[in-house]
Amino acid sequence: MLYQTIDILGTVAFAISGVLVAMEKRLDLFGVLIIAFVTAIGGGTLRDLLIGNTPVGWMTDITYMVTIFIAVVFAIIFVNQLKYLRRSLFLFDTIGIGLYTMVGVEKGLEAELLPVVCIALGTMTACFGGVIRDMLCNEIPMIFRRTEIYATTCILGGASYFLLTWLSVPEKYAYLSAIMVVIALRTLAVLFGIRLPNIYKKEA
Amino acid sequence: MLYQTIDILGTVAFAISGVLVAMEKRLDLFGVLIIAFVTAIGGGTLRDLLIGNTPVGWMTDITYMVTIFIAVVFAIIFVNQLKYLRRSLFLFDTIGIGLYTMVGVEKGLEAELLPVVCIALGTMTACFGGVIRDMLCNEIPMIFRRTEIYATTCILGGASYFLLTWLSVPEKYAYLSAIMVVIALRTLAVLFGIRLPNIYKKEA
Amino acid sequence: MLYQTIDILGTVAFAISGVLVAMEKRLDLFGVLIIAFVTAIGGGTLRDLLIGNTPVGWMTDITYMVTIFIAVVFAIIFVNQLKYLRRSLFLFDTIGIGLYTMVGVEKGLEAELLPVVCIALGTMTACFGGVIRDMLCNEIPMIFRRTEIYATTCILGGASYFLLTWLSVPEKYAYLSAIMVVIALRTLAVLFGIRLPNIYKKEA
Repeated sequence: MLYQTIDILGTVAFAISGVLVAMEKRLDLFGVLIIAFVTAIGGGTLRDLLIGNTPVGWMTDITYMVTIFIAVVFAIIFVNQLKYLRRSLFLFDTIGIGLYTMVGVEKGLEAELLPVVCIALGTMTACFGGVIRDMLCNEIPMIFRRTEIYATTCILGGASYFLLTWLSVPEKYAYLSAIMVVIALRTLAVLFGIRLPNIYKKEA
Repeated sequence: MLYQTIDILGTVAFAISGVLVAMEKRLDLFGVLIIAFVTAIGGGTLRDLLIGNTPVGWMTDITYMVTIFIAVVFAIIFVNQLKYLRRSLFLFDTIGIGLYTMVGVEKGLEAELLPVVCIALGTMTACFGGVIRDMLCNEIPMIFRRTEIYATTCILGGASYFLLTWLSVPEKYAYLSAIMVVIALRTLAVLFGIRLPNIYKKEA
Repeated sequence: MLYQTIDILGTVAFAISGVLVAMEKRLDLFGVLIIAFVTAIGGGTLRDLLIGNTPVGWMTDITYMVTIFIAVVFAIIFVNQLKYLRRSLFLFDTIGIGLYTMVGVEKGLEAELLPVVCIALGTMTACFGGVIRDMLCNEIPMIFRRTEIYATTCILGGASYFLLTWLSVPEKYAYLSAIMVVIALRTLAVLFGIRLPNIYKKEA
């Protein structure tokens, strides 16, 4: 129940972020809807395709389509008020990537893939909806540009799950801890401006 | 027979639209060929991937590759004359999206998916080749920008199919009617400039 | 053993080309890693998805992830020295597309697809990692623009394989010859500036 509620809040946060990017590009209603949809389910869809879980998730569980549709209508109507919700949106998005990371890791485990591949799938689930959103909006994906760490928190969260189970922590607790790791790291990253090391020489 | 003829005409129309966009971008021969190909089979390929129908359609039925190849050669040679064919091309494209929509809906039904998912698959089949074409050409997809309704006519056509079968219209007639609905709506949209409602405030 | 060594060298060459493109776009460490990864495994992944070979190759054989990771670290550290390696990189890339082409052709044969589809799959395996790389970097794919023939050499190499086996050349020799055809054609193309015929009118 809690799990499902968080899942839906994460989907809502991703959909709203899609609406905001799409509206900045002045797309029409259909474009906004598709971008919101892709942002929310793109990562999980790519993961399902790569593993071979077809028909992909959102086709068999209608909850996602309905949730996203409602979120889009809401976001378009209240677009001017959304700036006051920035903190809530950050919260949903952060919980969302934490949860999506572990959903991806779990799907990888079900397919009996190696830990490093599971971590890649978790990160993909959490982050690649945004990558496809940015590709469709003709932008270089935001998570490839140097801002506070985002995808990296998913990688570390996923890794912490395997570390904890390796240390004999029961799976359930490792699972929840990993979600917390993602959420905590992402929050700290934004609070303290933590970025990946710069790989470019400083310009004179 | 009629069905197949229309299918081929639709494929030709999509391929030619790909050639025109690619040549506007001054791509080379290989680039033009790939863009034409992707425009014609991209939507159906994405649909097949999401459902899990692999190897995807154009790999097992060679007709598409041959048709597209001939269309590309034709289009490159007669590119200057194509402007006189604009009306025919509009006709083919419109018949094409009508037919492709119902092909997609049918594939969804075969996979026992919910009506709303089938409608999404139909719209994807008809419209997402153009989306991939625009992504490859480094443009924001045309159907996300506000012009006469296009994808929306596919959604309404797909919905009309389910409405008609729900009203006990025999499947065959519902199928044909739905194709007609798409064609009629798209024609009306272009004739009367029907667009989706504007979701942006008017600028002062 | 030789086969595997070449495969790894090809992967390294593709990964390094990804790093160079990504660093030109000033992406951050994570972005560079993903672009390198996608460049190296994107073509094979797309091929596996279209055929239905899931989980896709790099998920079950960890060699690719490890190789790419090491290549990226190496490339970032020695980025300024890489210009002195341009000739080696060209060599690896050329051997890489030769080998990848035939890997793709073979996967098509295993799936019992028609020769023309196998050639398409081979070309995709060799060239489409670069296409996805360019899409993610917000560029029109390099191989669609008119420079020395690249994808075309893969098509001709793949075709030569089927010609040779049709002429009763033993499969093994046809396979190796086809790789040589790609390598030779690509080398000649760069040495003599061989391009596809221009499909545009000369501008006055």
